[in-house]
Amino acid sequence: MVGTATPGDWVRSARYSAAPEVSADLRAALAELVGDDIEWLAELPASEEIQADRRRVHIGARLPSGWPPSAFAWFHSTNAGVDGLLGGRSWPSATLLTRTTGRMGRRIAEYLLSWMLVETQQSLAFTAQGQRRDWRRQPVRLLENDLAVVFGVGRIGGAVGQLLRSCGLRVLGVSRRGELVPGFDEVVDLAGALRRLGAAQWVISTLPLTDQTRGLFDQRLFDACDHACFMNVGRGATVDYSGIRAALASGRLRRAVLDVLPVEPPGAEDPWWSLPNTTITPHIAGVTADDDVLADFRRCREALLAGKRPGLAADPDAGY
Amino acid sequence: MVGTATPGDWVRSARYSAAPEVSADLRAALAELVGDDIEWLAELPASEEIQADRRRVHIGARLPSGWPPSAFAWFHSTNAGVDGLLGGRSWPSATLLTRTTGRMGRRIAEYLLSWMLVETQQSLAFTAQGQRRDWRRQPVRLLENDLAVVFGVGRIGGAVGQLLRSCGLRVLGVSRRGELVPGFDEVVDLAGALRRLGAAQWVISTLPLTDQTRGLFDQRLFDACDHACFMNVGRGATVDYSGIRAALASGRLRRAVLDVLPVEPPGAEDPWWSLPNTTITPHIAGVTADDDVLADFRRCREALLAGKRPGLAADPDAGY
Repeated sequence: MVGTATPGDWVRSARYSAAPEVSADLRAALAELVGDDIEWLAELPASEEIQADRRRVHIGARLPSGWPPSAFAWFHSTNAGVDGLLGGRSWPSATLLTRTTGRMGRRIAEYLLSWMLVETQQSLAFTAQGQRRDWRRQPVRLLENDLAVVFGVGRIGGAVGQLLRSCGLRVLGVSRRGELVPGFDEVVDLAGALRRLGAAQWVISTLPLTDQTRGLFDQRLFDACDHACFMNVGRGATVDYSGIRAALASGRLRRAVLDVLPVEPPGAEDPWWSLPNTTITPHIAGVTADDDVLADFRRCREALLAGKRPGLAADPDAGY
Repeated sequence: MVGTATPGDWVRSARYSAAPEVSADLRAALAELVGDDIEWLAELPASEEIQADRRRVHIGARLPSGWPPSAFAWFHSTNAGVDGLLGGRSWPSATLLTRTTGRMGRRIAEYLLSWMLVETQQSLAFTAQGQRRDWRRQPVRLLENDLAVVFGVGRIGGAVGQLLRSCGLRVLGVSRRGELVPGFDEVVDLAGALRRLGAAQWVISTLPLTDQTRGLFDQRLFDACDHACFMNVGRGATVDYSGIRAALASGRLRRAVLDVLPVEPPGAEDPWWSLPNTTITPHIAGVTADDDVLADFRRCREALLAGKRPGLAADPDAGY
């Protein structure tokens, strides 16, 4: 539908629906934006007749039960990661899939910076001391001039690189092609990264989950590190559990900060909780706010009305 | 001596001494720099004869017992703050007083940024949750676009402003003259600051202790704040105890982060420990390393050898 309709027309005449995970406030704002009602998809029967309409634009985080992707002309994901939508199925080329990145890159960059400074400034030690009225110095150190290796040089990796460089760190990006892009001092491919990891204080992954990245962070990769802190804000299943455990035990990694885990939410018995020197946060680094979804949906819609492919369109064949 | 000698000569023929607070490593590095021995002043008799020599260059944090400032041609402070040296005495104009700022501005800026992010990223809450294997989201928020009001626009305030602006905050400086200097979006005087504090999420003091700044942060000033976090990396006695207590109780301040206190180290009974919503750290924000002292002493000496007044010279009449 997207490729064949007169620019704008199909978007104007589309039927809009939202998933239950969309808040009532956001739904109201979306309705105001499109000048039409936004249906709750959960209240519609998933009948073949309705699905055959093919003019439906849906806003949600997951594919609704009983609805194949082909039922939609355009699916706008309220998340940046779309592996949950794409996983295990082929996505029809006629269904446009767009993402919400929002200020996610910036949010993730501040998240990472906070945990870096928590370590270098000994925030937890000083907090504990203060509670005991203990006024004793602990060694703190400058973050400036540290080397951060950032896997993934897209929107999110780029925003991370930009903030860390603004703070005086040296930032090496890692991508498949190894081509320099804004936000980085240098970009290398995976082979190049393996040669440089030993000099990095911080090893950061912003990678999506694809066939190529699953289990990428394994013992072989961590063996190239030397007392680094590994931080994952991409996807949990890019990390191999026994690999990271061995690296934390041997000191190849001095610490890990994991905002994402292979299974979320993790149960109390999840083995990832027991990793030594590891901070686990509840997939909070790049949390999207309603404002972010609304702004990114608006940008996509404006591009479509102008007959352009939205910059936030996902590439289902690449897997992200 | 400084003003009358041929440039360089008196520096080359000076007698160098160090205080006990200088480490043996630093003393050795200083000796290598000046090409001469560095005496331990504590091992010298504080006799009038020795003091009358007036060619002595001393490196230390405090005025040695029995030695008036006039006994030195040049006193290089291992600290940035010289109020302890100047307090309660007139400093002779013939004695050059220089300071170690080192990378202190940058260190202080990273300290401040760390505690700002600890709050916005809920680092303490997530750490506590992780220890309980509790994977629950808490609201985090972006620091970008926040307004920080920074009292003091000198080397340290400027470095703070620069880092915070690099991180996307808006930074308003406060100085006596209110003239714009690098590192700030805007600089106002105290009257101007009182009108702007209500919009600030962060109120930061880098001020030295002088007659003008003693107790400056009092109830009247905090009354101009609206749920701000107050951070002090200047001097403890610039803050009025009952004023900050009232402001924390009323919510004019949502939080305080104090790296400096009027009495350091504070005893276990010190009332500052009992302030609500307050983090106290042990005067660690701008801690100087031996490398900093050596580098700043070298810069001062090179300026003097070239017949120039060192940029790190203090202004004893101004009190800092």
